[in-house]
Amino acid sequence: MNAVARPATRTDALAALAAVRPPVRVVAERDELAAFEMDAYIQRRQTPLAAVLPDTEEQVLQIVGSLGRLGVPIVTRGAGTGISGGATPTADGVMLVLTRMRAILSVDAAARLATVEPGVPNAQVTVAAEPVRLYFAPDPSSQVISSIGGNVAENAGGVHCLKYGLTVHNVAGLRVIDGDGDLLEVGGEGLDSPGYDILAVMNGSEGNLGVVTRATLRLLPRPEATETMLAAFDTTKAGAEAVSAIIGAGVIPAAIEMMDRVVIDACERYMALGLPKAEALLLVEVDGGAEETAETLASVKAILASCGATEVRVAKGEEERANLWKSRKGAFAALATVMPDYYTMDGTIPRRALPEVLESIYALGREYGMVIGNVFHAGDGNMHPCIFYDSAKAGDLERSEELGGKILELCIDHGGTITGEHGVGIEKLKAMCLQFRDGEIAAFHDVKRAFDPEGILNPGKAVPTLKRCAEWGGLHVHGGRMPRPDIPRF
Amino acid sequence: MNAVARPATRTDALAALAAVRPPVRVVAERDELAAFEMDAYIQRRQTPLAAVLPDTEEQVLQIVGSLGRLGVPIVTRGAGTGISGGATPTADGVMLVLTRMRAILSVDAAARLATVEPGVPNAQVTVAAEPVRLYFAPDPSSQVISSIGGNVAENAGGVHCLKYGLTVHNVAGLRVIDGDGDLLEVGGEGLDSPGYDILAVMNGSEGNLGVVTRATLRLLPRPEATETMLAAFDTTKAGAEAVSAIIGAGVIPAAIEMMDRVVIDACERYMALGLPKAEALLLVEVDGGAEETAETLASVKAILASCGATEVRVAKGEEERANLWKSRKGAFAALATVMPDYYTMDGTIPRRALPEVLESIYALGREYGMVIGNVFHAGDGNMHPCIFYDSAKAGDLERSEELGGKILELCIDHGGTITGEHGVGIEKLKAMCLQFRDGEIAAFHDVKRAFDPEGILNPGKAVPTLKRCAEWGGLHVHGGRMPRPDIPRF
Repeated sequence: MNAVARPATRTDALAALAAVRPPVRVVAERDELAAFEMDAYIQRRQTPLAAVLPDTEEQVLQIVGSLGRLGVPIVTRGAGTGISGGATPTADGVMLVLTRMRAILSVDAAARLATVEPGVPNAQVTVAAEPVRLYFAPDPSSQVISSIGGNVAENAGGVHCLKYGLTVHNVAGLRVIDGDGDLLEVGGEGLDSPGYDILAVMNGSEGNLGVVTRATLRLLPRPEATETMLAAFDTTKAGAEAVSAIIGAGVIPAAIEMMDRVVIDACERYMALGLPKAEALLLVEVDGGAEETAETLASVKAILASCGATEVRVAKGEEERANLWKSRKGAFAALATVMPDYYTMDGTIPRRALPEVLESIYALGREYGMVIGNVFHAGDGNMHPCIFYDSAKAGDLERSEELGGKILELCIDHGGTITGEHGVGIEKLKAMCLQFRDGEIAAFHDVKRAFDPEGILNPGKAVPTLKRCAEWGGLHVHGGRMPRPDIPRF
Repeated sequence: MNAVARPATRTDALAALAAVRPPVRVVAERDELAAFEMDAYIQRRQTPLAAVLPDTEEQVLQIVGSLGRLGVPIVTRGAGTGISGGATPTADGVMLVLTRMRAILSVDAAARLATVEPGVPNAQVTVAAEPVRLYFAPDPSSQVISSIGGNVAENAGGVHCLKYGLTVHNVAGLRVIDGDGDLLEVGGEGLDSPGYDILAVMNGSEGNLGVVTRATLRLLPRPEATETMLAAFDTTKAGAEAVSAIIGAGVIPAAIEMMDRVVIDACERYMALGLPKAEALLLVEVDGGAEETAETLASVKAILASCGATEVRVAKGEEERANLWKSRKGAFAALATVMPDYYTMDGTIPRRALPEVLESIYALGREYGMVIGNVFHAGDGNMHPCIFYDSAKAGDLERSEELGGKILELCIDHGGTITGEHGVGIEKLKAMCLQFRDGEIAAFHDVKRAFDPEGILNPGKAVPTLKRCAEWGGLHVHGGRMPRPDIPRF
């Protein structure tokens, strides 16, 4: 996609950045550029040509326009918390860092909307909305630092997306600058907009289609009541079956999180929380009106018991709730006590397949002789198997990546997908060839070309070339999603 | 967009259709083609070159492939209930009629999904899901006949979309054939899919980007309880303010519909329902768990009273509920008692602007000397002003269309959009130039080209050419949606 008009020199690019008015902060020294050489996908790092930190949309327009004319790639970055390498630099490209654009422009209580700049950290939106008793629902675990622009780029989820949806479901409108340097206003306050749904396309496009310069976010009223409970099970199968039983009973909890024995033990070692002895724990949160919530709590408790829960603890008050969440929220830190390195996978499967897929993941772990811990959003079937490895041991990282690939194949075989919320970035390019047929990959490229014909924005990320898929060869699994009859192609 | 490779003759097209295997039903006689010469946008009719009614996806693949190679335009049509002319034929094109593809392929109670062919009428999905106590939420007023393929193409809404969303929010996956004749599987069972959100783009694309051959739909459990009430107001302003007061109190009813005096009187004349004497009626429905619903009913009643409702009737039981809905559901038929012809507009505005915009609409009616009745989805700000005219009176239709255009300008000026749920089709091409800047229109064309590079699918619909916008000239209103500062363009 990266059809560069003419090879631009570093000098050309720096001159273009120096010409931006009013003058913009540019980082060009190698030492200083170290801050931008990787995001939270720490397996890959690269020094970029330069970094630029604009303060205004006007500056972004100038930057995209002039670098675009030079054919210099642009990698947009927020807080850099993404874990699939969506903001890994390219050597010949400029990092467009939006962390200085962090104004909260308006909070409209009547319309339940907040308009913010892309560098605003997710959690700050809720802080700004608190005086009018509203909040922004998407809550990725990075929410204290990850910024709205990045949340949009990755279509971030979080523990409560089971009930409140992903970022795309909570964004009303965007201002974006596409690869041609055109400013587009997409979406609006209403449920629907005329024209094709460019708003949805921008969400989750991983910085490949446009640079978000402003976002209008939907806010929600705080639920009147929240109840949180922790249920213990003797087998992961029983825990996984309870998840389907809850949803099957017509209840949509705010969250259903699951942890297996590896994670429970790690949390206990790390935080001494006094968790129940169990093979699996479910953390279930329900919310809504006071009476509704009390009613739902009783139903969920009954379902958990009938599914074989050996113990159910219900939090009494805010402090106990915070304690129950501690295990889940501290789990990834606690996992460092198992082994120094682990590789967190991200795949989604239909809920009904949870018991079977968990079993298969453990079997793969035994086959590879590697420990796998599972802590994940069970309610929406979004799994996060953590594969432990030792980076000091030759070949161990590569084996963990191979095992991770097998887990993604397993997800596709069960009608799932290769990423739930972490994005494709550079990490999962190969897995994209597993998930999609050539015609589908080609359609993604066509969409890319529609917004970024010269391939200026984040080249090489999110969608593999058909050539790479062919080189990786024979990967197409095609068990997935919907039946795939053998249809003649014309 | 309609870059035809070489002019194909009618004979070529018919030969291509005759070659489809197994043989497909083709309509080529002028008399029989009358059935397809217009959809429910009855202002325009056109005899197509031919119509073809496939039974299988394989046949659709062959049809799109071979007509595409000939450069023959394809207009896809379901039940033909669309009212913006999305399925108006072109003289040189073939109507691809999907009404014979009406199999319900599966209903999966555990996953809460139904997979259906595009010709299945909306209401039949719910019939099929009833044995497992689930239903399909989108309920356009045409739902008994309008088909799923058309619902997807128009991103159909309905009276309950305030709480349950539009079609796009209730579709999990699609199989579509794009303008190149490629079959794409988009979406899946999970909340998110990797790659750009082509699923969302297909919803509401008005047959311009692909032909839906299969849809996987999300099903919902029936709410435990439903309460329906009718509230009368002395002024439309008071009624409109009550809408914002309900939503502002944190309640999301299943539906809030509004009718003004013109419509109330017409319903009374037509159905003698014994409606309250009022300037405005609100029909409010709340649903959910039994206790939650009782609680919400009480809150809404209190809000209605505090907003000046002169009477609130709550339905006791299913029969009374059906009676309350009769006025709303029969309103459009009843309006024919006012004058023989009326033109139903469709625009969306932020809820808070309802009182002011309603006043302005009445003022426009007085200015043009035309009666306007309003019956609409007030909860989501989706207005349907009905402009009465006499088609026998020279110039009256044109005046109604001019007045309709002014109403759409009014919507845009208040931060709204030119269509809420009826689509652009051919009816609102001009209004699209009002709503969007040239760069935005160009972005839509780029998306079109990504899926239909030769412009085979439904040419001339949904998105105007920039040339037409320039000819219509000086239309850009730009009061709309988000602030539009004077940004330098590069």
